[in-house]
Parts: sequence; C-alpha cells; structure tokens
Amino acid sequence: MPKVISFATVGTGKITRKFIEAASHVDGIQLYGVHSRSEDKANQFALDHGVERYYTDLNEMAEEPEIDCVYIASPNSLHYEQAQLFLSHGKHVICEKPMFTTTKEWELSYRLAEQKGVKLLEAVRNIYTPNFERLADQLHQIGQIRSAYLHRNRYSSRYDQFLEGHVDRVFTKEFAGGALMDLGVYPLTLAIALFGEPQASTYFPTLLRSGVDGAGTLVLQYEDFNCTIMCSKISTSYNQSEIHGEKGTIAMDQVAPISKIDFIDLKEPSKNRVSVKEHELDMIYEIQAFVDMMNGMRQQQYEENREIHRIVVHILEKVRRENQIDSV
Amino acid sequence: MPKVISFATVGTGKITRKFIEAASHVDGIQLYGVHSRSEDKANQFALDHGVERYYTDLNEMAEEPEIDCVYIASPNSLHYEQAQLFLSHGKHVICEKPMFTTTKEWELSYRLAEQKGVKLLEAVRNIYTPNFERLADQLHQIGQIRSAYLHRNRYSSRYDQFLEGHVDRVFTKEFAGGALMDLGVYPLTLAIALFGEPQASTYFPTLLRSGVDGAGTLVLQYEDFNCTIMCSKISTSYNQSEIHGEKGTIAMDQVAPISKIDFIDLKEPSKNRVSVKEHELDMIYEIQAFVDMMNGMRQQQYEENREIHRIVVHILEKVRRENQIDSV
Repeated sequence: MPKVISFATVGTGKITRKFIEAASHVDGIQLYGVHSRSEDKANQFALDHGVERYYTDLNEMAEEPEIDCVYIASPNSLHYEQAQLFLSHGKHVICEKPMFTTTKEWELSYRLAEQKGVKLLEAVRNIYTPNFERLADQLHQIGQIRSAYLHRNRYSSRYDQFLEGHVDRVFTKEFAGGALMDLGVYPLTLAIALFGEPQASTYFPTLLRSGVDGAGTLVLQYEDFNCTIMCSKISTSYNQSEIHGEKGTIAMDQVAPISKIDFIDLKEPSKNRVSVKEHELDMIYEIQAFVDMMNGMRQQQYEENREIHRIVVHILEKVRRENQIDSV
Repeated sequence: MPKVISFATVGTGKITRKFIEAASHVDGIQLYGVHSRSEDKANQFALDHGVERYYTDLNEMAEEPEIDCVYIASPNSLHYEQAQLFLSHGKHVICEKPMFTTTKEWELSYRLAEQKGVKLLEAVRNIYTPNFERLADQLHQIGQIRSAYLHRNRYSSRYDQFLEGHVDRVFTKEFAGGALMDLGVYPLTLAIALFGEPQASTYFPTLLRSGVDGAGTLVLQYEDFNCTIMCSKISTSYNQSEIHGEKGTIAMDQVAPISKIDFIDLKEPSKNRVSVKEHELDMIYEIQAFVDMMNGMRQQQYEENREIHRIVVHILEKVRRENQIDSV
C-alpha cells in the first residue's frame, strides 16, 4: 500500500476549505500544512483544520521535505509561478482551474513535472465524477450529435461590490479574471472532454469597465455541429445544459457538478434519468483520482486529461488574445 | 365601419389551414378564394373551407377585383415574385415569414406597396401577441440586460425523409430553406423587436449535404450584451428562452407562441408569472393587427414592424451570404 500523501495548501478561500474537507473523505491523502502571506490568517487557517504547520513563505514550504503535494488556489495569474516553484522542488501540484493562461506555461510546467517525476493536476472537478462517466457512456444514445448548449451563468455577489466601485480580483485583467476564466472553463473543459478538439473557436465577450468579460458566448465549431457555450458572472440562467442529437437529447442540470442527467428520445419524448446520486462533496472524485495518479496509477487518464487541458488552455489563450482580455 | 376584407390564399399546406381557421375568428376579414397549381387540390381546398372560388393561375387571381388581400404561404424563394404580382394589382399582401431573402426585395416591395396604397405584412406571429407586449413591458424589471438566449430547436419529421434520401424543399437552397430561414427567424425577429439593431451579427451554420443549414448559432452583438440565438430542424431542445439582466431573469417557454413568461428576481429567486393566457390560435392576434392596418389604423406599429423586418432581412441576407447558404 502506498504511503499517505501529505499535502499543503496555498490560498485560504472557500474553495480551499472545500478541498480540505473533501480530501478528509479520501484515503491516502492528509493535510500537512497551510500557507497565507498573513501570519495571523495562516495560523488561524491551520488551527481551523487541525494542523500545526503553517507558512507565510512559499519558498520555505517548497523546501519542506515532508510535503509531497501542494494544492494551489491562489488568483489565476499566480498559478504558473507557484506551480513552477513547487514542481522544481519535486512536489506534486494540484492547481485550481484554470491552471494556466498560455500554452507556453502548459508546456513548460508539464515538462518540468515529467523531469521531476511528479504529477501536475488541474482541479477541474467536473470531468472526474461518476456522472461525467455516465454522460460519456450514454452519449451514443442521441445518435449523430447536431448541437450542444453548455452554460455557466451565475450572478456573483462580488458583482454587487463591483457595481458599488470595489473591483474584486476575479473582475481584473491583472489576476486573469473574467467570466470565461472563472466559469466558462467548466463547460469548455466538459466540451473538450466529450467532443475533442474543435476545428475553430470564437468568443464574443461582454466587457466590463475593468476590461474583463463579465459574460460571453463561445462557439466551438466541430465538423458536424457547434457547441455553444455561455458564461456569465453578472446574470443568471435557469436553463439546463443540453446535447442535441438526431435521435434524442441529453439534458443535464449543470455542468459542475453534473447532478442530474436525462436522456430524452425524440420519438418517445419521456425523460429517462441516467445519472447516479453522487457524494455531495463532488471534489472527492477528483481527489481520489489525483491520489491514484500520484501513486502511479491511472496513467492513461492522466495523459488524456493533460491533453484535454492543453486544448482548453490553447482555446482560452487564443480567444482572450483575440479579444484583448488577456492580462499581458 | 370599414368593409369586410376579402382575402385569397396561395399555398395549401398546414400553415394556410391554420391561417384560414384563425381568420375565421377575426372580424372584418373573410376568405374569398384559394389557389393551387393543381386544379384538384385547389377545388378540394376551396371545398374544405366553404368557398366556391379557386384559382390555378396566380395572374387570374391577381386580376380579380373582389380580392382585397392575398395571404402567401408558398416556399420562401417564391415570396418576392408573388408579392410583387399582387401588390402591382393593388392587393394588400400578407406573407409568411421569412417574407424576403434580400434587402433589395424588401425595398422594392415596400416601395411598390406604398405607391399602390396597400399594406405589405409579414406573418411573423410572435411579435403581435399579448404576451409579446407583456414581455416588452416587463423587460425593465431585470435591470441592465447582460445576455439573452433565444432558441428554436425542433426536430422536423421532414428530416426523417431527408435521412432516407428524400430532400424536402425546406432543406434546399433553391427554395431558400434551412434552419435559420425556417425557424431562426422567430427568435431573430423577437430579438430585433426587443433590442433593436445589433452592432454586429455572426452565424455559425451546421451544414447538411443539401447545402443548407440544418442547425446553427447566431450571435447578435449589442453594446452591453450578446443575444445568442440557436435554431435547429435536426435536433430538439427542451430549454426555455431567457433574457438575463443584472437584477433578474425573464424566462419564456418558447419564442413562438410565447405562452408562459416568468420573471425571476436574482435576490429573491421565486418565479413570478407575468404572461397572460392567450387564445390557442395565436395567429388571430397578427390577423387582427393586419385587418386594422389594412383599414388604415395602427400606422405607427406598421412602420415600426416594417423597420424590424428591414433589420431582420438585412441580417439574414448578410449571414447567409457570408456562409454561402444563400440561394444565389
């Protein structure tokens, strides 16, 4: 049996708390320490999660031999540099989505991970779940795919603050924010995981005065259909996401987590539930997969998801540059 | 009280039957005669609808002084020539959507109608209903519009035949068919009626072997938001159409007819039904409006809808040409 993986965290936000909680339900991984630039915050965050070790210096954390793996949930624009630091010290890295903003970062980081014999893992939770597998398995039922509509449109309370003049990092170019980076990455990753690399991609951003996209529509063109993706942090949709085929339609309640999946046969239009009931902490599925991968298992899935990630980063970089919403 | 308008029909399909039935519920308009190229069909269609006069020759019908108005429901590519014929004989013309395929046709036809002192009316039923008015009235409730998703994705039984090798006219370039022309025109017209002329429009068609679009995504770019339109005749969606604002979302069951409209406040997300129960024959609303217009009333609405129509035709022509799915 492989040794338990000791992990440390960068970032003290809600997502990090969720990750730590989910990890506590997974065998083979254990929290070792936490990081915050603020000593008070770091100390409190460690106390909150029952560990003694906390760090205010990333280099010190990177040099700690007891740490096997670092989970990074800092602002998007810091991911690359931090991942490089930990990889170069031989740590596995799990990084929140979107892990990188350019293909160059993707290349250099995976190359470094390989050199160091460690794994680099993007925490894009919606392609690791049982219902993602159900979706992929059931897709053939709808026949030739003719269209897809995947969306993540959710008003953010941070936009209340934005309207009052306080611009949160998620709405800034400096921190690689915006709707596509923050939310669109879920439907985009799902699309690439299901349909592969599109022939073309075009993004229509709705720009905020801070220069990032508050919302947008991304069209992925495949040979026989389009996948239309919508994302927004400044308005909300109550629609399902759907994949439309010549024989039927697959509808899912959301793209992350995918809790309910229905298949509707065009000729007998009644709903047939094909999803399973998942654990309410949906991050446990990715963490289980990451533990396996760090232990040298699931190599094929690791490589497949690395390739999905490459395509996602390529599209993000391309459409953000075309629309001048990239940070550089 | 104005005299009852006598109308004749061109086309003997389901839509013509519906129009005649709806017209029978509207005061001030009465069926006078019908046309089909086949004498048997014309005779039978006249019998079915309780009139004696039928025509196999459009010119003969155009010369009949008793006819005040002609309803045209022929294949799209024939609309222009037929409208010209009847307008030139001083008949009002009601034509099924999409009435024209080019701005040139639009210009020449409205000019001729004006010269002849008659009305030219596109039967695009979804902008004449009480629920369209409710929608327009309630739109302010959602605050600044940030996104819209309007769709018409409905598998056509004619696509069954298409897959078996029989290509119906609605799937041919020759008859100006395809998903955008046949179905997309509903959400497109609704968008223009609600939001006005977009700054830009881009269409992503999914092409069939017959050269037309079986499905497609049309993005209309406005200053502060995108309106994303999807249409398909080769697959089906069960989603609502939605307009997303900074304060709430408006959801409608369909774009034609709009039977149910809900307003959902972002801060108190419960559904508030704002639609009214409409007559099940939703064409009666447009016919009532057309009768009023032919009698010289509702001049402002006539001009507004003519302008909406101009914008719709302009977009259709532009995006079809860009994608080589126009008939010429």
